[in-house]
Amino acid sequence: MSQTIDPTVVAQVTALAEKARVASRRLALMSRAEKDAALLLLADALDAAAPTVVEANAEDIERGRAAGMSESLQDRLRLDEARVAAVAQALRDVAALPDPVGEIVRGSTLPNGLQIRQVRVPMGVIGMIYEARPNVTVDAAGLALKSGNAVLLRGGSAAASSNHALVQAMRDSLAAQGLPVDAITLLEEGGRDAARALMTARGYVDLVIPRGGADLIQTVVRESTVPVIETGVGVCHVYIDRAADLDKAQAITLNAKTHRPSVCNAAESLLVHRAVAADFLPKALTDLAGAGVRLHVAPEVTAYAEAAGAAYALASEQDFGTEWHGLEMSVAVVDDLDEAMDRIRRYGTGHTEAIVTEDRAAARRFTAEVDAAAVMVNASTRFTDGGEFGFGAEIGISTQKLHARGPMALPELTTTKWIVEGDGHVR
Amino acid sequence: MSQTIDPTVVAQVTALAEKARVASRRLALMSRAEKDAALLLLADALDAAAPTVVEANAEDIERGRAAGMSESLQDRLRLDEARVAAVAQALRDVAALPDPVGEIVRGSTLPNGLQIRQVRVPMGVIGMIYEARPNVTVDAAGLALKSGNAVLLRGGSAAASSNHALVQAMRDSLAAQGLPVDAITLLEEGGRDAARALMTARGYVDLVIPRGGADLIQTVVRESTVPVIETGVGVCHVYIDRAADLDKAQAITLNAKTHRPSVCNAAESLLVHRAVAADFLPKALTDLAGAGVRLHVAPEVTAYAEAAGAAYALASEQDFGTEWHGLEMSVAVVDDLDEAMDRIRRYGTGHTEAIVTEDRAAARRFTAEVDAAAVMVNASTRFTDGGEFGFGAEIGISTQKLHARGPMALPELTTTKWIVEGDGHVR
Repeated sequence: MSQTIDPTVVAQVTALAEKARVASRRLALMSRAEKDAALLLLADALDAAAPTVVEANAEDIERGRAAGMSESLQDRLRLDEARVAAVAQALRDVAALPDPVGEIVRGSTLPNGLQIRQVRVPMGVIGMIYEARPNVTVDAAGLALKSGNAVLLRGGSAAASSNHALVQAMRDSLAAQGLPVDAITLLEEGGRDAARALMTARGYVDLVIPRGGADLIQTVVRESTVPVIETGVGVCHVYIDRAADLDKAQAITLNAKTHRPSVCNAAESLLVHRAVAADFLPKALTDLAGAGVRLHVAPEVTAYAEAAGAAYALASEQDFGTEWHGLEMSVAVVDDLDEAMDRIRRYGTGHTEAIVTEDRAAARRFTAEVDAAAVMVNASTRFTDGGEFGFGAEIGISTQKLHARGPMALPELTTTKWIVEGDGHVR
Repeated sequence: MSQTIDPTVVAQVTALAEKARVASRRLALMSRAEKDAALLLLADALDAAAPTVVEANAEDIERGRAAGMSESLQDRLRLDEARVAAVAQALRDVAALPDPVGEIVRGSTLPNGLQIRQVRVPMGVIGMIYEARPNVTVDAAGLALKSGNAVLLRGGSAAASSNHALVQAMRDSLAAQGLPVDAITLLEEGGRDAARALMTARGYVDLVIPRGGADLIQTVVRESTVPVIETGVGVCHVYIDRAADLDKAQAITLNAKTHRPSVCNAAESLLVHRAVAADFLPKALTDLAGAGVRLHVAPEVTAYAEAAGAAYALASEQDFGTEWHGLEMSVAVVDDLDEAMDRIRRYGTGHTEAIVTEDRAAARRFTAEVDAAAVMVNASTRFTDGGEFGFGAEIGISTQKLHARGPMALPELTTTKWIVEGDGHVR
């Protein structure tokens, strides 16, 4: 680390993390029935606190507006009564999910009679570092509680008032239930140093999950000494193979780019096999232009972009590795599957990569050789999602290889413990 | 990080890591049959190279002796013909193990007809940082190859000649087989900076595993930006409950301490319930004294130690958190199970903790509440071992909670990939 962290802040965060650890020991022993009951009461508490939360949120919005926050960021930050009801409902949905804790992952009786089993147990204390999205505050608290973990929340300062109101309502409910309030803790002081103290609270915090833009995630990965799960940056490709069904290709391309362009599983780059470029590009680029997508094109695509009436520019090298977060897309023609996979290796971020093809051999090579959290055949990149995968909840999408890869839900917030039972066994 | 790394060394290590990554792409696609055949030929190559290896090892031993290396370190470093045969045999044993790659961890058909499956795939490039134990060089290379990974090895400089000879023999065999030699790479230059370049080669190296003493592991954990799996430090306790069968307790205590005192799953601290102290301690301490164990005792244990004729000293606070790595042990009396678990929480390292009891309730609380990679009931701590658990091989024992906890074998050297197959699916 290049800078030192204010020791007062380190002491504050450490003290909060110690309290969270004490709380976590109680949480680890709660039965599923107890945790589900607690989640339902937390949800009721949020519903009851809705007026307070909305008022606190209005302060954040007002502060944001005065500071020139963009409309789209204001929208992500805004909590009206309906949105508070939705976050409360999310806690009820988490209560309905199976409890990962106690699951026996594997086990056996050894030749010497020792009985061994590997059992899922909570991590302990989880740190979340995220941007000004108050719904993440409640989602993370609910998923942590359900998986038996205490959580330390460090949300974006632009949502400070909203987060305070949400966490206060949840902590008041925990207290009323006779549960440890330190199960859910908001780091409200210390500015950036609080986040940095959280990432270096080794021995106090078991896992840090950053959620947000590439800068936030890279900072956490670089500075953290606590284990981190990297989430989210997605430069996802759709590759239209020479053996593609072009109707499917057209639908998948449009959906992958425009269904929700701001999220990490949206497609950012379109690769088209030379053999089908003349058939496919006029239709696909007309679709994209019609949806308002601005194109960043390789030289040989310019004529198609022009003919489709698209807004376009010649793509720079950098454009092909850009996560646009909006209605923009890079487009290139490739000579073959190998060139497509080479480009994916060079520009992709290991999130989601899709091939559209009716050729089994091409699909088999693509799924075997492309190194990403999710590899799609004839499906939109938008399906890489905990909800779509049937997990019922998602705390982020891991793009790293350690511990969790792809959508992370409750099991990914647990670790395991070996329990070994003998009868006086020695070696 | 506090110091900068020599940029020449960074460039060297990065270049080697890039070559390893290219090799890893080939390894990832090899079938089990191909990998097993390669491992058997590597084993033959080591057998054939035994004279060269032994000669190289003699240089290391000579250098070590001149530098005043201890007898026990010299013993760990020494390779005679029999030991070379043993490391070659270890490769044949790895060939006989199941291949984790390609295992379908879970999968389902979603309501919309999308078929999803989570498949085990290799990590890619694994870095190993370890001390002067040349057998680790071969073990790590074998486990990496079997799990489809390329490996970058950074062994202790005291084993430089031995490691060079071993790796050269394996690389020559890979070349003769038409396989990429960069699957197994030894970092031979750059001194400590090479290790530091390896731990910070983010994007080139997928995982770093340090194996060795506490200092080595802590340095890697602190300085690494590549994901790390922390291994090995074990301050393991044996707690003799009031409801213990004292014969079992006696056997387990002696075995846990003396069976192989230098390793991480050896017991370092004995906790005895007050109710059985007067019955148990005379026998147990006599056993330990007879085995030459020096005791570090709480004040109320001194009289027992004296009577047992043990070598002993009053334990300091620090002694209770010490991994002795030899024939020494701390001993304390506790009032109850809670005090035992408090001490384990304070002094333990989350490796292996054992209770000896015939009381189901005590065993249940201990296994539920003690937070460690392995928790034993009526069994020696020495059983936390990949071989004992039936894994057939072990690359280390993880004491962290992320990705792997406890003995790590082939599956822990893999990650997963979601493969999603549709028929034109869009959201």
